[in-house]
Parts: sequence; C-alpha cells; structure tokens
Amino acid sequence: MATTIRSAVANDVPQILEFIRGLAKYEREPDAVMATEADLLRDGFGPNPYYWCLMAEHDGQPAGFAFYFFSYSTWLGRPGLYLEDLFVYPEFRGLGIGKALLKRVAAIAVEKDCPRLGWDVLDWNTPAIDFYRAMGAEFLDTWRNVRVTGDALKRLAGAEEPAQ
Amino acid sequence: MATTIRSAVANDVPQILEFIRGLAKYEREPDAVMATEADLLRDGFGPNPYYWCLMAEHDGQPAGFAFYFFSYSTWLGRPGLYLEDLFVYPEFRGLGIGKALLKRVAAIAVEKDCPRLGWDVLDWNTPAIDFYRAMGAEFLDTWRNVRVTGDALKRLAGAEEPAQ
Repeated sequence: MATTIRSAVANDVPQILEFIRGLAKYEREPDAVMATEADLLRDGFGPNPYYWCLMAEHDGQPAGFAFYFFSYSTWLGRPGLYLEDLFVYPEFRGLGIGKALLKRVAAIAVEKDCPRLGWDVLDWNTPAIDFYRAMGAEFLDTWRNVRVTGDALKRLAGAEEPAQ
Repeated sequence: MATTIRSAVANDVPQILEFIRGLAKYEREPDAVMATEADLLRDGFGPNPYYWCLMAEHDGQPAGFAFYFFSYSTWLGRPGLYLEDLFVYPEFRGLGIGKALLKRVAAIAVEKDCPRLGWDVLDWNTPAIDFYRAMGAEFLDTWRNVRVTGDALKRLAGAEEPAQ
C-alpha cells in the first residue's frame, strides 16, 4: 500500500484528461471540459510548456494529480506557482494523497525560488477549505475573480463586433 | 494630445517598477513592493520571460501600464492570459487609457488564441468593478483566492520546519 508521486510525461496525457474530467464532475460542471488529448499534449509537452503536472499513483493505480503553471508577483519580483487543479479520485481519498501532492507542488515552488503558491477554491467546498487552512493557506477574501471569455473577449479586443 | 500603447522593452524596467509602486499605493499597500529593477529585468526580458508588459504614454509621458502572463485553462485546453496589474496614474485618468490598455491585452489574447483573460479586483474598488463590468467581464464570486507564502510555503514543502 504505497503512494508514489512523479512528474507527468507525454504518455500520461489520456490520464491527465481523465483527472480533469473527474474534477469538473466534482465541481458540478461535468460538461465543461472542451480540452482534448491533442491540446494537452501540445501545450504541456512541447519545447515551451504552458503547464506542468504531477501524477499520484496508489499501488500502481492512477489516484490523483496536480496541474500547475507559473504566475508572477509584481510585489515580490519573482515568479510564483499557480495550482490550477488538484484532484484525487473519490475511492482514493483519506489516504493523504492530496496532501502529498500539495506538499510536492510546494517543494517545487521552494526549489524554483517561487515565494508564493496560489490557487482558487469553490466557496461551498468546505472539506477542501478546511484542508487548505490546515496546510497553512490564507484566504484573500477581499479579492474578486474577474474574467472575459469567448465572444466578450473578442468584442473587447475589437476583433469581432456583434452583428448589426 | 495622443495616447500610444507599445510593448515594454528592457529600458522600461525603471518605469515598470514605478507603476508597480503606484498601484501598490493605490491598493493601500505602499510598502508591499519588494521587487527590484534587477528582478524585473531578469524575469521579463530574458530568453524565457515570465511576464509581459504594455506601456501607455500620453503626449510622450508615462501614463499607465498593463502587466500580464500566461495562465492555462484545463477545461478549454488552451493557455489564457492573466492580467496581474493594470494601472493608470491619477493625473491621466478619464482619458480612456485604462480601457485602451485592457483592449490591447484582449487583442493579444485573441491573437494568441487564448480564449480567456482573467484578473482579480479588490472588492472595495467600485470604479474598477463598474469599468470591468462595462467591458463585458464576469465576476466569479463562488471562487475564493487561496495562497501559501513565505515561511508557510517552506513548512508545507517540508524544507524548513519551525525552530523547536
């Protein structure tokens, strides 16, 4: 009964997509995942990756993953890490796998001299919030997340005005 | 009386740091900026930049900036852009410079096939919130920002336990 954590390789892309879908389902957005294996392969395993992944296996079975990329702090003058996804399959919870993944991402941040590791959590996800608090996280509740997406982004860019 | 927007070059680093300090002051954290010119030069203008900047000038005077980096959406399977800082000096407000900067960042996102542009705003910053809403932004208020920083990050990484 052992958990191992390792960096993802290109052959892990199908499993990475399975984890992404598993997390979307948990976040009550099962149909939100448009990403394909080709997308993930192109963007994570080329010469200039946009993201990195850690894979957790328990007794040789895929159990969970952490998906992160670099952010940047203008106050600290250093890159940070942003944890886009952290997910453990329901049947592997309670074994410390999420904690092991989070600790490994933190270790990568320290190793890369990134003084900050950030992420977002859904406000109804109390188990996650309690877990993160126990791990030493702070909650920056004076900040609101803002986003422009899809057609609104194109309109803002001026590249595509709405049809008259 | 004209505003120009251009990509930052290495020689802009002192002015970028001035903008960062100006924004920190506006955000009521005037002493929070630890970044140095050397940090910003190393991280933004080497072979693999961690960030990019747009500089706005009005009648040849530095007026504002936008500071961004790549994020990644696991749902969309594409990189996005994250706008870390958007700032216009108080004496240059009301001239549409912030809007011009935001539109240019949106245009860069569209050009790079990034379907999402995200950022954060302080909840008391009503003028900014109204402006972003008018620009087509959505507010993702079910998400809370989480962060582990400094010594808490080192403890989480296991690299440095608190002294006994």
